[in-house]
Amino acid sequence: MLEEIDVQVQELLRTVNQRALQHLDGSSYQVDTKSSYSDLVTTIDRQNEQELDRRLREIDPGCRILSEEGFGNQQLSDLSGHVWIVDPLDGTLNFVKQHANFGVMLALYIDGRPTLGYIMDAVKQDLYHGGNGWGVFKNDQPLAAPADASLRDSLIAIGRSLVLDNVANLPQVARHASGLRMYGSAAMEMIGMLTGELGAYISYLRPWDLAPGRVLAEELGLTVKSIDDDGINVLSSNLVLVATERASQDILRLTD
Amino acid sequence: MLEEIDVQVQELLRTVNQRALQHLDGSSYQVDTKSSYSDLVTTIDRQNEQELDRRLREIDPGCRILSEEGFGNQQLSDLSGHVWIVDPLDGTLNFVKQHANFGVMLALYIDGRPTLGYIMDAVKQDLYHGGNGWGVFKNDQPLAAPADASLRDSLIAIGRSLVLDNVANLPQVARHASGLRMYGSAAMEMIGMLTGELGAYISYLRPWDLAPGRVLAEELGLTVKSIDDDGINVLSSNLVLVATERASQDILRLTD
Repeated sequence: MLEEIDVQVQELLRTVNQRALQHLDGSSYQVDTKSSYSDLVTTIDRQNEQELDRRLREIDPGCRILSEEGFGNQQLSDLSGHVWIVDPLDGTLNFVKQHANFGVMLALYIDGRPTLGYIMDAVKQDLYHGGNGWGVFKNDQPLAAPADASLRDSLIAIGRSLVLDNVANLPQVARHASGLRMYGSAAMEMIGMLTGELGAYISYLRPWDLAPGRVLAEELGLTVKSIDDDGINVLSSNLVLVATERASQDILRLTD
Repeated sequence: MLEEIDVQVQELLRTVNQRALQHLDGSSYQVDTKSSYSDLVTTIDRQNEQELDRRLREIDPGCRILSEEGFGNQQLSDLSGHVWIVDPLDGTLNFVKQHANFGVMLALYIDGRPTLGYIMDAVKQDLYHGGNGWGVFKNDQPLAAPADASLRDSLIAIGRSLVLDNVANLPQVARHASGLRMYGSAAMEMIGMLTGELGAYISYLRPWDLAPGRVLAEELGLTVKSIDDDGINVLSSNLVLVATERASQDILRLTD
């Protein structure tokens, strides 16, 4: 049952991704701003989301959907049953300015349990997927758990405002890492965690930024925790640390 | 004459790049630290440099060479004649940790004049090259001059320590941009400038980090200037701003 859903969702993601790629030249979509001049949405975000929402309801009848641009069930107050969390185009600024470094992400939570996660690297057309005890795959290849690197031996990614506003002593964390990277897309940064390119990722994440990567990171034995609260609330935004076990300990010593 | 050198140097870069790619799996090279635990050099850096230096002396007899790992003429005190500036592997930390986002870079200065520049995106195998009034090419395709974007409408890249140490009010510059990116490789960040993905790049650059990108950026009409000194000294390190004309004006208002 879940296996069948999984196969169809993978196919759906590849289809939706094709549309985004067809519009990469920038001539055929429209860009609007949302909360600020750097918070963009394009007609591609909206078209992707409408197709994802429509098809998920066919693939998984009776499911509820929490999605970024507002076409899902926006009034979700609990996580009972099958809940899909949808980011139709993550890294919209990169999509518009770089024509690279953006992705499409989905997660399935069942009765609140992080169950399946999907992150599509749009330009490379690599689909990272898994969960539910099945492991994590890059397309058809199983991924090994990343090495348990320390902070000092890791490249890490931190969101811009957390560094500039000196939140939770994070500039100090950045100094202690091998290097600091900023990609501007939770999809890209979560993929960096899954492949071991990054040893830690710290950002203020909304539900659709976090849920898919959380499923996959936890499936690989990585630590995923809130650092501004007692636990992660999937329905709201969280300041989240994703890290190897060792880097997580190194970082929490500095942020305490 | 210069055309002939150019053809041979392009071929040389593709050959040297193949070696770096063959060693991407990490099993067949050795890593040492230099000035700090995040300043790495591998046996690939050294092999690349030795081959580049040897072949450049054959292709351009009588030239002098300034190169990162010390196999060139390290005692250069002037820029008379043909001087090649060589970065055999830029982004060594990315090479080791990410197996991506690193490059090989070369520049030719003739009697102090920035003349030819070469930046090879190693993994994508894209060679950006040009100068001398010939224009800038990505492989065989001529690149158009990037749009003259403002700071507010640009993604920008700034080196980690410049942000963390609040050098020249650069955190404030970062706040005013559309987004802040850090790739950890001057080669990758310079390519971002050439393609228009970035509107500004600010970093403390050594001669081999700066010279190739400077030739190409200036050829495309981008601004390249020192922001800690009166002018760029090619033989020493500089705090350098590469930017569109508009972003450059916006940034210099904030850093003054």
